[in-house]
Amino acid sequence: MFEKILIANRGEIALRVARACRELGVRSVAVYSVADRDSAVVRLADEAVCIGPPDARQSYLNAAAIIEAARKTGAQAVHPGYGFLSEDADFAEICADNGLVFIGPRPEVMVALGDKSRARALMGEAGLPLPPGSLGTLDTVAAARAVAEEIGYPVIIKCAAGGGGRGMSVVRSADDLASAYDRTRVVAQAAFGDDRVYVERFLSPARHVEVQVLCDGYGNGVHLGTRDCSVQRRHQKLVEEGPAPALSGATLDALAETALRGALRAGYTGAGTFEFLVDEAERFQFIEINCRIQVEHPVTEMITGVDLVHEQLHIAGGVPLRLRQQDVRLHGVAIECRVNTEDPDRNFLPTPGRLTRFTPPSGPGTRTDTHGYPGYLVGPYYDSLLAKVVVWAPDRDLALSRMERALHEFEVDGPGVHTTIPFIRRVLDDAGFRKGRYSTGLVDRLLGVPDSPKDPVPASSAHLSRRTR
Amino acid sequence: MFEKILIANRGEIALRVARACRELGVRSVAVYSVADRDSAVVRLADEAVCIGPPDARQSYLNAAAIIEAARKTGAQAVHPGYGFLSEDADFAEICADNGLVFIGPRPEVMVALGDKSRARALMGEAGLPLPPGSLGTLDTVAAARAVAEEIGYPVIIKCAAGGGGRGMSVVRSADDLASAYDRTRVVAQAAFGDDRVYVERFLSPARHVEVQVLCDGYGNGVHLGTRDCSVQRRHQKLVEEGPAPALSGATLDALAETALRGALRAGYTGAGTFEFLVDEAERFQFIEINCRIQVEHPVTEMITGVDLVHEQLHIAGGVPLRLRQQDVRLHGVAIECRVNTEDPDRNFLPTPGRLTRFTPPSGPGTRTDTHGYPGYLVGPYYDSLLAKVVVWAPDRDLALSRMERALHEFEVDGPGVHTTIPFIRRVLDDAGFRKGRYSTGLVDRLLGVPDSPKDPVPASSAHLSRRTR
Repeated sequence: MFEKILIANRGEIALRVARACRELGVRSVAVYSVADRDSAVVRLADEAVCIGPPDARQSYLNAAAIIEAARKTGAQAVHPGYGFLSEDADFAEICADNGLVFIGPRPEVMVALGDKSRARALMGEAGLPLPPGSLGTLDTVAAARAVAEEIGYPVIIKCAAGGGGRGMSVVRSADDLASAYDRTRVVAQAAFGDDRVYVERFLSPARHVEVQVLCDGYGNGVHLGTRDCSVQRRHQKLVEEGPAPALSGATLDALAETALRGALRAGYTGAGTFEFLVDEAERFQFIEINCRIQVEHPVTEMITGVDLVHEQLHIAGGVPLRLRQQDVRLHGVAIECRVNTEDPDRNFLPTPGRLTRFTPPSGPGTRTDTHGYPGYLVGPYYDSLLAKVVVWAPDRDLALSRMERALHEFEVDGPGVHTTIPFIRRVLDDAGFRKGRYSTGLVDRLLGVPDSPKDPVPASSAHLSRRTR
Repeated sequence: MFEKILIANRGEIALRVARACRELGVRSVAVYSVADRDSAVVRLADEAVCIGPPDARQSYLNAAAIIEAARKTGAQAVHPGYGFLSEDADFAEICADNGLVFIGPRPEVMVALGDKSRARALMGEAGLPLPPGSLGTLDTVAAARAVAEEIGYPVIIKCAAGGGGRGMSVVRSADDLASAYDRTRVVAQAAFGDDRVYVERFLSPARHVEVQVLCDGYGNGVHLGTRDCSVQRRHQKLVEEGPAPALSGATLDALAETALRGALRAGYTGAGTFEFLVDEAERFQFIEINCRIQVEHPVTEMITGVDLVHEQLHIAGGVPLRLRQQDVRLHGVAIECRVNTEDPDRNFLPTPGRLTRFTPPSGPGTRTDTHGYPGYLVGPYYDSLLAKVVVWAPDRDLALSRMERALHEFEVDGPGVHTTIPFIRRVLDDAGFRKGRYSTGLVDRLLGVPDSPKDPVPASSAHLSRRTR
């Protein structure tokens, strides 16, 4: 096991990783931008190094500065968290070149899977069901149009280098294709430094269900159940839960086994997530792999009792996976709500500002992962995730009640600061959501977005059964 | 189920009960003394009623004021928490006389078990092993001396009406008996309004192990595993854990089954705790029953997933126990540390004051039950429990590491305010404690108290096998 690692991230996930380090007796080095000098992880990690100005390109995306901080502090490995450099295979290679263990899959696996278009092809070869779509990336509008015409509208244009839903454009008719194609390429270039895009049939209404896997470097792997992440606004998840509700045990098992098959085929190591879309007939199709710890990983931790960040550290340290599949038992239901400093009444506009009051919920079955504290200044530089409220209960009804209780007691105040809590409450109160019968269209429906699909997911989703070209 | 209940308590347990109410859709009424007008539960409960001045006799022990608050708000039941009126059978009767359900055992059961001397006799009849001691209460020093001479020193003088260790005196030789006897009677009168005392052989070194039970009004009952509460200073628990470590599965099972047998024999209803002393040979003897929810109940909640306060409300509401014994599964290890506002370097002197910083721990496997918040004024009127930090992990080593991590990140600051965290750290670092081999003498040993028993518990505890007279 490592003696010291560097945490190449910020916010709640940096704190999360620092907690795991301390629990395992591994010394932690936080890195921070000038804007984050007062962050909790700077105080709680064993060491902290300033790596640059607020602009992420000069700090959290600045590989050279991070490598230098690791060298200076004698860290042996780098935990990238999520976002920033977490899925950057080049960074993983730079780490290796500098004698640092990158806590994630091997660089060549990241290259293969980080290119969402290539991952799609690879998983198709491994026998995973795919939505209809392009075989590779599409360099021209004309090529995109040809694919769209063949598979039929609506389609979704995705960034090959992307993840986390950024830049994706849904196109409902041929008229909108060219502008969406151009827009996605621009966003892809800006967000990922790579403007390649590909096209898939847009499956809607459908549910976003993902599977957590853990694989070591010795060919051992386990799946750790499902999470439903259908509650999304513009492809950004707001509420996640596990196990995915209202699906048969057979479907949940099939999803989990399919994901693990894909992971082992890809030579995956570490914690990873396989994302699927599922229709009402419980047919499912693979959409992408996330080669990192995810924001919603506490959901899985609460239903399995497995600490995923501990496991990441063990695996990266070369320890064979101690968990066997039969040791992974799912108990109860966990729900996570992301509390963002955004104003739901102003189109989710970020609302930076200083927190004058901040009392996160706790108590039975309640975990709040947050870097916030009273007096914390929410800056304008990074994403607006302030806290993840996660609850566990023996059943879903009680988990929902517990989440309402937890949100009720969550006090966040500060001049100009708003949070997404009022909107999350609307989601939790929704009749379809309460029944566990909801799709990725839920948020648009609540927001009154035109053409938003209805919930619950109807049975007429025949296109889902088509195999990819 | 009730529509509205009144919470006749303060501090973290009042908040705990309010959380349970909200989760079950039961409206809650907080009562508070003038000193607690800014407490968190006043804000979080559905209603709040001021019941008197800071002096507990005029507020939290003022049955008339509490009944009046219940009447005024239309509450149907009263949850007494722990301490204050929670084990007061007269109060339970007053509740019944006023058409209120007292959330606890029936008054006649409370009378029988609340009198520790009577409970001892009853449990002896039920076949539970007892330490040698008096058959009933002892009205004179001479009577106490006669018992002590017969069973042998050291002995412990206990308050018949008491609980929670208050007033108990250990007497190591005949010379000290008279003064200890008088002192215990004075404390008993002051604390419980009842100066009756009884005498038992003082079993030391030994471990304090207790069993949580739940029984409904229909003859159904379950046990929910053990908790070790040996880490005590002056009979006040500081650290609790479950399951009790370093005991065989057979002993843990025997303890649990013995407790449940006693509970069913006594006609117990609700959540209750059976306390035992256990020697190194794993022989055990019953000492008392606590007819209420206990401070350390979250330990059991974290290893069983059962919400004990929910169960209390269901049982008091007349709902048959849904849990069957085979549904109660114990997972992993939970540890609770009580964080008191006391200065361990000044003989645990309470240190009231205003909290300028207050950041309780959270994150994986971590629960903090606290009524504290930044700006909270810790007053001089009540006990000094500020927070309970409770962690869960798959095994004890990891639970200990997690607790250290949690305490590391717990920030409590305020002019003049000290906490017991530094002392708790000493307990957690103790080699005997880390091995799970410790006795009720651990704290005295750490504090250098003369004549404190050594840890680990030696095998020579033959007196434990003697049955009561």
